[in-house]
Amino acid sequence: MNKDYENGIDILKQMTDVNGEQNIKSLGKIFPDFEEKMIAFGFGQIYSRPNLDLKTREVVTITSLITQGAFEQLDFHIKAALKAGLKSEEILEIILQCAAYIGFPKACSALAIAGEIFQ
Amino acid sequence: MNKDYENGIDILKQMTDVNGEQNIKSLGKIFPDFEEKMIAFGFGQIYSRPNLDLKTREVVTITSLITQGAFEQLDFHIKAALKAGLKSEEILEIILQCAAYIGFPKACSALAIAGEIFQ
Amino acid sequence: MNKDYENGIDILKQMTDVNGEQNIKSLGKIFPDFEEKMIAFGFGQIYSRPNLDLKTREVVTITSLITQGAFEQLDFHIKAALKAGLKSEEILEIILQCAAYIGFPKACSALAIAGEIFQ
Amino acid sequence: MNKDYENGIDILKQMTDVNGEQNIKSLGKIFPDFEEKMIAFGFGQIYSRPNLDLKTREVVTITSLITQGAFEQLDFHIKAALKAGLKSEEILEIILQCAAYIGFPKACSALAIAGEIFQ
Amino acid sequence: MNKDYENGIDILKQMTDVNGEQNIKSLGKIFPDFEEKMIAFGFGQIYSRPNLDLKTREVVTITSLITQGAFEQLDFHIKAALKAGLKSEEILEIILQCAAYIGFPKACSALAIAGEIFQ
Amino acid sequence: MNKDYENGIDILKQMTDVNGEQNIKSLGKIFPDFEEKMIAFGFGQIYSRPNLDLKTREVVTITSLITQGAFEQLDFHIKAALKAGLKSEEILEIILQCAAYIGFPKACSALAIAGEIFQ
Repeated sequence: MNKDYENGIDILKQMTDVNGEQNIKSLGKIFPDFEEKMIAFGFGQIYSRPNLDLKTREVVTITSLITQGAFEQLDFHIKAALKAGLKSEEILEIILQCAAYIGFPKACSALAIAGEIFQ
Repeated sequence: MNKDYENGIDILKQMTDVNGEQNIKSLGKIFPDFEEKMIAFGFGQIYSRPNLDLKTREVVTITSLITQGAFEQLDFHIKAALKAGLKSEEILEIILQCAAYIGFPKACSALAIAGEIFQ
Repeated sequence: MNKDYENGIDILKQMTDVNGEQNIKSLGKIFPDFEEKMIAFGFGQIYSRPNLDLKTREVVTITSLITQGAFEQLDFHIKAALKAGLKSEEILEIILQCAAYIGFPKACSALAIAGEIFQ
Repeated sequence: MNKDYENGIDILKQMTDVNGEQNIKSLGKIFPDFEEKMIAFGFGQIYSRPNLDLKTREVVTITSLITQGAFEQLDFHIKAALKAGLKSEEILEIILQCAAYIGFPKACSALAIAGEIFQ
Repeated sequence: MNKDYENGIDILKQMTDVNGEQNIKSLGKIFPDFEEKMIAFGFGQIYSRPNLDLKTREVVTITSLITQGAFEQLDFHIKAALKAGLKSEEILEIILQCAAYIGFPKACSALAIAGEIFQ
Repeated sequence: MNKDYENGIDILKQMTDVNGEQNIKSLGKIFPDFEEKMIAFGFGQIYSRPNLDLKTREVVTITSLITQGAFEQLDFHIKAALKAGLKSEEILEIILQCAAYIGFPKACSALAIAGEIFQ
């Protein structure tokens, strides 16, 4: 597990900046085991896997967040997507395609969040 | 609109085979305007756009369908994803990543559907 | 409560036929209190209220069922909607509008169910 | 499409006031194609259709927004519903009926938003 | 019904403090019948039932709120859960288990709310 | 990881019978890594934790499955809940309480599944 956690921290550093890393780690102040599992499993065991590059993984994550209406996590992952090499036009395009698959309301909420980041 | 519809039919032919096309068109027997809008808007106006290739669009679609539990449409789009060039390992990887973002239950249901296609 | 239950049964008889009533009541074989609450609260206390007629209430119910993907209850309520005076064109129109608000996948699943009833 | 967009703007002007129209159009500053599609498809092609009047269409929209928890769009559509002729008692009644179909938590959140508008 | 309402108020007083009770009752200023039904049905007829104690009922409620993303009601019920005898470690554990069943994003949002209460 | 997997298999044997275990393991024929992660993380790392006993964990799981409409996994977990010591009356009570928190439609679907098991 320790290795998964270290692995997860490495991936996290690739995905985000110091602020993003601190945000994730701050969950550990509330519940250390939660932060540990999230980093070891989510980042260490899943994001690190082959067959999908980080860029495509962020396509999956952004789409899933918008579809489930988990907008609080969207800022982190839109920034991570840009860092992984997705262009802002591609992220906007994901949001537009989501409109056809989950309807315009959630797509509008996502677009507003993207708009604040892209400014 | 007629042009959007024709455009949509062209995209649809690229995405699926004769059976898949017939399945979509059969909705027109129940409600012609629904089939017309879905093809003209969904396929003609959205899938045809630049900035995301068909392969990446299927990553978006498959992720959104699994996240919302719309499993009846998953068979069509996993087949379309394969036709667009996604490898079965990549589709399985999307399903595994979804487990971290929406939980294992819906990911298990998606995996069972993928399993029947990949056999 | 007894009065709410009787009230609920009266509404239920207005909404559905003998088969529909039996389907609802059959839940009582598994858990009598559940059937009692559902009829007394759902039908007796809510559907019986003023300010929305039965026809508009079925617009609400059908939209909510499609939006949450509760397709197992849709057959009952599309039939109840027809009995309350909604025309099949109006029900199809609700499904098409839902496509813009929740996306095409769930709207397609709803359309297939409506199609079997309207045949 | 241009005609659909113009049609959509006409419907939008019927549904909302200058502020509401500006809110929708402001999405165009982030992503012009998204605003164009939403107005041309959502308002121009769907809301403009026959078989359901604007009042009934707002019953559908409000119910779908509450059911999917898309509360950010609810203020706009409750105001549009009032403008289309729904009485506040009818909107409250929709929210109460939703409690039976999606549970009290989301209905409570919707009620708080309606309360601020009706004051 | 009056008896159900009184019963509901009794349960509510057991579950929460004066502030919590006022919050629930304040819904009555917007729509008295909604507040009445929620207290009479939700608290009076459901929470008062045998076979599950208040502590286990809060496990059900907290899990359902997190799963459906109804975070506005979570503060009330985490406090009610503590009052019913659930320990903070148990509530954190529910949130962690939810991560496996609905994914990390909604679990993170729930954890942030719990963290503010436990401080 | 190997230890997490072994741990997970031990928990799984406690929770289910030979058929249930085979069902979970059969996912490994489609995608071995998915089965491995699900058992090592879900069962090995989460279910094995202290602070909630297996019985309470099944209250969480059943509630989450019903709330998200993941009915395909409900049969497995209702049986696991019975094995962990939940009485059928308690499971029915969870379903009834869910009706107040997510509405009657999904609660009805859950009740039908429970009914087949309890016969």
